Amino acid sequence: MIPRTLFDADLDGFRDSVRKFLEQEAAPYHEQWEKDGQVSRELWTKAGELGFLCPTMPEEYGGVGADFRYSAVIMEELARAGLSGIGWGLHSDIVAPYILHYGSEEQKQYYLPKLASGEMVSAIAMTEPGAGSDLQGVKSNAIKKGDHYVLNGSKTFITNGQLADLVVVVAKTDPKEGAKGTSLFLVEAAWEGFEKGQNLNKVGMKAQDTSELFFQDVKIPETHLLGGREGQGFFQLMQELPAERLQVGITAVAAAEAAWQWTLDYVKERKAFGKPVIAFQNTRFKMAEMKAEITAARVFVDRCLELHLDKKLDIPTAAMLKQWTTDLQCKVMDECVQLHGGYGYMWEYPIARAWADSRVQRIYAGTNEIMKEIVARSF
Amino acid sequence: MIPRTLFDADLDGFRDSVRKFLEQEAAPYHEQWEKDGQVSRELWTKAGELGFLCPTMPEEYGGVGADFRYSAVIMEELARAGLSGIGWGLHSDIVAPYILHYGSEEQKQYYLPKLASGEMVSAIAMTEPGAGSDLQGVKSNAIKKGDHYVLNGSKTFITNGQLADLVVVVAKTDPKEGAKGTSLFLVEAAWEGFEKGQNLNKVGMKAQDTSELFFQDVKIPETHLLGGREGQGFFQLMQELPAERLQVGITAVAAAEAAWQWTLDYVKERKAFGKPVIAFQNTRFKMAEMKAEITAARVFVDRCLELHLDKKLDIPTAAMLKQWTTDLQCKVMDECVQLHGGYGYMWEYPIARAWADSRVQRIYAGTNEIMKEIVARSF
Amino acid sequence: MIPRTLFDADLDGFRDSVRKFLEQEAAPYHEQWEKDGQVSRELWTKAGELGFLCPTMPEEYGGVGADFRYSAVIMEELARAGLSGIGWGLHSDIVAPYILHYGSEEQKQYYLPKLASGEMVSAIAMTEPGAGSDLQGVKSNAIKKGDHYVLNGSKTFITNGQLADLVVVVAKTDPKEGAKGTSLFLVEAAWEGFEKGQNLNKVGMKAQDTSELFFQDVKIPETHLLGGREGQGFFQLMQELPAERLQVGITAVAAAEAAWQWTLDYVKERKAFGKPVIAFQNTRFKMAEMKAEITAARVFVDRCLELHLDKKLDIPTAAMLKQWTTDLQCKVMDECVQLHGGYGYMWEYPIARAWADSRVQRIYAGTNEIMKEIVARSF
Amino acid sequence: MIPRTLFDADLDGFRDSVRKFLEQEAAPYHEQWEKDGQVSRELWTKAGELGFLCPTMPEEYGGVGADFRYSAVIMEELARAGLSGIGWGLHSDIVAPYILHYGSEEQKQYYLPKLASGEMVSAIAMTEPGAGSDLQGVKSNAIKKGDHYVLNGSKTFITNGQLADLVVVVAKTDPKEGAKGTSLFLVEAAWEGFEKGQNLNKVGMKAQDTSELFFQDVKIPETHLLGGREGQGFFQLMQELPAERLQVGITAVAAAEAAWQWTLDYVKERKAFGKPVIAFQNTRFKMAEMKAEITAARVFVDRCLELHLDKKLDIPTAAMLKQWTTDLQCKVMDECVQLHGGYGYMWEYPIARAWADSRVQRIYAGTNEIMKEIVARSF
Repeated sequence: MIPRTLFDADLDGFRDSVRKFLEQEAAPYHEQWEKDGQVSRELWTKAGELGFLCPTMPEEYGGVGADFRYSAVIMEELARAGLSGIGWGLHSDIVAPYILHYGSEEQKQYYLPKLASGEMVSAIAMTEPGAGSDLQGVKSNAIKKGDHYVLNGSKTFITNGQLADLVVVVAKTDPKEGAKGTSLFLVEAAWEGFEKGQNLNKVGMKAQDTSELFFQDVKIPETHLLGGREGQGFFQLMQELPAERLQVGITAVAAAEAAWQWTLDYVKERKAFGKPVIAFQNTRFKMAEMKAEITAARVFVDRCLELHLDKKLDIPTAAMLKQWTTDLQCKVMDECVQLHGGYGYMWEYPIARAWADSRVQRIYAGTNEIMKEIVARSF
Repeated sequence: MIPRTLFDADLDGFRDSVRKFLEQEAAPYHEQWEKDGQVSRELWTKAGELGFLCPTMPEEYGGVGADFRYSAVIMEELARAGLSGIGWGLHSDIVAPYILHYGSEEQKQYYLPKLASGEMVSAIAMTEPGAGSDLQGVKSNAIKKGDHYVLNGSKTFITNGQLADLVVVVAKTDPKEGAKGTSLFLVEAAWEGFEKGQNLNKVGMKAQDTSELFFQDVKIPETHLLGGREGQGFFQLMQELPAERLQVGITAVAAAEAAWQWTLDYVKERKAFGKPVIAFQNTRFKMAEMKAEITAARVFVDRCLELHLDKKLDIPTAAMLKQWTTDLQCKVMDECVQLHGGYGYMWEYPIARAWADSRVQRIYAGTNEIMKEIVARSF
Repeated sequence: MIPRTLFDADLDGFRDSVRKFLEQEAAPYHEQWEKDGQVSRELWTKAGELGFLCPTMPEEYGGVGADFRYSAVIMEELARAGLSGIGWGLHSDIVAPYILHYGSEEQKQYYLPKLASGEMVSAIAMTEPGAGSDLQGVKSNAIKKGDHYVLNGSKTFITNGQLADLVVVVAKTDPKEGAKGTSLFLVEAAWEGFEKGQNLNKVGMKAQDTSELFFQDVKIPETHLLGGREGQGFFQLMQELPAERLQVGITAVAAAEAAWQWTLDYVKERKAFGKPVIAFQNTRFKMAEMKAEITAARVFVDRCLELHLDKKLDIPTAAMLKQWTTDLQCKVMDECVQLHGGYGYMWEYPIARAWADSRVQRIYAGTNEIMKEIVARSF
Repeated sequence: MIPRTLFDADLDGFRDSVRKFLEQEAAPYHEQWEKDGQVSRELWTKAGELGFLCPTMPEEYGGVGADFRYSAVIMEELARAGLSGIGWGLHSDIVAPYILHYGSEEQKQYYLPKLASGEMVSAIAMTEPGAGSDLQGVKSNAIKKGDHYVLNGSKTFITNGQLADLVVVVAKTDPKEGAKGTSLFLVEAAWEGFEKGQNLNKVGMKAQDTSELFFQDVKIPETHLLGGREGQGFFQLMQELPAERLQVGITAVAAAEAAWQWTLDYVKERKAFGKPVIAFQNTRFKMAEMKAEITAARVFVDRCLELHLDKKLDIPTAAMLKQWTTDLQCKVMDECVQLHGGYGYMWEYPIARAWADSRVQRIYAGTNEIMKEIVARSF
């Protein structure tokens, strides 16, 4: 009931084309992808052909030079459709920007078109086994030897981990230092010593490949140090993390809106004790409470998106957005499952999958506890 | 950290002048007014002189023709300062608009300047003993007899009830009908048969006079039927209620922001177990969680204000805003009291009063349960 | 820290033997059973040999004449171990009692020993597609024809649905009536016209077979009408449902206790930012809050168990127990997942499965909304 | 619906007499006492005559040698009646036990009969301005000079502070030490240098006198050091605090039960939109949810009471009880206010006062945050 002002007719058209593409090329296969534990490579190349990958990259690097609203539309449509296996957001709006912002001209020319076409799938490797959201505690290290670095260590919970051809790896170039010793590298999965662990079996996001990665004496050419100077990694991460958290928030709100709508449809149609479930005051109140919060969240995330377009979204605001919208998303999913009764627990119902999918949103991209720490630091 | 875009330099200047006025003319006396159960009449006339009453009324009727943002500033400053006894919002932005929208030219010319100057204090009398938020269940009746109506009945929980000179009264002109039999009247407190009950002793809002009103055969000239036709009352109320709920939301968010800030100041200064209270993770997390929700609420209410300025704030959205922001306000007050420890329970601390004051926000202007019903009706 | 007084040394010994059995005979296979969507039949017969099935049935019917505490111990041990696929509670303490309380002597002699030995697996079929917890809305019907009934209809969400040999079926003997037209029948799965649908794919409880059942002109001998008189079904259900809800409560509390303990072990061992996760105040407070609620729940459920042993557990109290303990269970699971970080989302971690398993507890055995209605009816 | 088993016919009779006494001697005057900020001294002496003060003290010291259940009955009846101004629990079951457990025979003979008769009113002075629940941070000090101690310092939030004749004061005998330097003293209010500050104006508990106390060179005879040895204070407090927290829990649950019952009566009688408020599903569900939690709390607190009677209530369990039941109490009060609509905000309604009264329960006797720390220390 509150009009969205950021999206004009062009974006509506783009949204339609994304939606149709997903309906035709993704939705019918998602169940199979859940069994496979990953989506098909074909999906990536098809998406690349249509400009759905890396839309914000400049044209000279294979993108279409769109603004971030186009990325937002893609994320929203993925979330609305419950296609949780498709890791484009990470690829297009996290990894590609690292290369764009910190890569050499050569790297941009070489990698970005491949990412935009779907020829290469990308990932970012931050989290380590036993280290969680503590980036300063990273143990993977890349030690300079002549004209290259030697990377050792392991990572876990890496989205797109099985499919990835190119990975931005967080490693210590100076293991004695914390933040200051941290650097980012562009590492290809095909390089010797780079091994992918098994695809992790998760509670939800079944079609999303999530993996451990192992590095044993991986030789990285020194030019693949992002930004060209050691010790910039933590700073680079800090620069890009608000965008990642905004993405999580965009997804959270779109997913909550979709779940609410599925549930409204369900409780209107479904009967209990001789009347539609929506006729019960408890149902009405739960739906109304959710609607109010989702509406607030919609306005909040759109405002943050607007700030991001103006490069004014600050770190604490993005952290608040991530924490609050994902908490809300999970609350909404939980209520919506309950309003579906037994069907809410059946995997074939979208709400069931959405419930299981959503749970990780409060954990990844920095746990919500980390978000609160980040916010509190700004007081 | 999210800039407010609706308020320009003019409004900032206006805000400063309101704030200074309140600091000088209201804050020092509020404790006494709490004991008196009402604010001074002098405050009203002083405010009237400075244009702080009815600012949105046209100049020809004694106002300054400002837009609603000026009213919002006044409400925000009252809420921030915890001056809960001052019932200007109701007077300026609920009662006056009824007259402006539905009164005769004569009534506008007669009453609006008096309201704008503070010569008359106004109230609106909807709720009846035992009827709560159920407007269709109103029992007060105004029966046509020749060229006047005869009003009988009683009202309760009437804000500005003791001070009021002019009251918009909701009554049945056709007692057999529900909504269709409901009309609004402009009634002067001085008229025969109009009696004010005692000032009600409330948990909070101690300086706000809240009263029962009794009508025994009050003769109302037929011209004082608002809108000139019987049975328009329910419709008129429906038209104006979104504005009232927006006001409650504006107040809720400003009050929550203020309470959060007082609490931040307190936990930064206050020490426990040898370190500032803000250094404890629990404090930090509670403050961060509140900050996120308050930030969302700020963006939400400002967006609703923007819609209202464009006359596009619909009934369900205003209801969601009222319900959600007041629930949040009370949650914030409760947390902030806790973070103040024993001092949070001492009346002399603003947070203690704010806690007690806030509780009624979920009840009046339509209980939050009614808000949910209104929202649910739109599904 | 509050001693449990209902369980003496004999029960402790029994608990040990159950625990060991489950560790050896169930835990190592549960992952496979999740893939199979059901546990092995062998588990049932082994359990039958050891007296773990139907322990409360009298010795003359193959049980060991134990009191309900022995059943409680089995449920608790299953819950603690996260062996959600094993549907003994339903079999031993819901279905068997229906036969014991309402079956003919012949049926008791024939069926109960088979249930106690595990030769037959049992289920109860209440819920119908589209009817949820509304037992009066049952559409399955069993129409008397000479010396037998003809059963038609379908059921869904039937626990033990794939494995079941014997099913207590709720059907209308008088379709025009509601509660009064409802009867229960003992129906064997092998009978003609009895068809099992596919094993339902659920969010959790992956090793628990849950199915649709279809009845097409199933001929039921009239002696298989439970209680011997038509129209007793609703009353019989009302008599037995408190026991079922107590079981859910017993499971909920034991599962919550186990999850809490796993989490405590995890946060003590796991480090973040250089110290154990338990050293963070947020962790400590969450763990303490959960501990308090779980402790209250433990005392509550044990008191209800005590009342049940005295045949004094009334319907509203059992409903409150079911609603509140399962709400708590889910809240605890959610918090514990969060405290596990990314590992909490990995299926191999017990907490992840427990989170997914627990969600259905608020839905089955009467949704928690139904529980509230039941409680409210007693006011 | 769950019978209480700890209370026999004798206790029921005692409860009746307490209830009648309070109805006759306290309830009619409580409004006046709220205005006075304290109850009458006469109430204390009347209660003393009837054995309602210090009932658990041995007969040789003026008590009746009752067990703690009698004290519990008195606390429950005070809470049920909303007579929050009457500080007997503190006097009878906190201060008197300190004297009984740690006082000299002479002190027991001198003071306990005076406390039991109501000739003396007692208090305990722990909290200091700016120190909150941090007992190790106490700054008041009592320095040995010859055969007496010289006490200096100030205390705040002291219950019974205006009426008190005898105060157990927590002070440092060795200011350089923390816990080890802490001692307790029996101090009479009449002694030179003992000054009472003003009666603090609180949000609720209006008839409860709560004060600052100032000590300037108060000479305390060395015999008034409780326990006869310096540095025992912290240990003594630790020994007695579980009992205090149990009392808070007893009060919390009884108050919540009473509020629930008032609300049930109200929603049954009160009509809205043409039907009783209890007929609305939202009302029914809120009442049912509260009933479930209150029932759990009732069982929990009675179990703790039983443990306390056996001297087996440990510190973490008492802390959990205090934290959880007071959180629940406040939640219940808040819901019950809402269900009363506007009347819930009117001071004349018991629910309004109970709401305001209850808020401090989460703060005093160790804030609920401190409770969580205590619980967490036991992990």
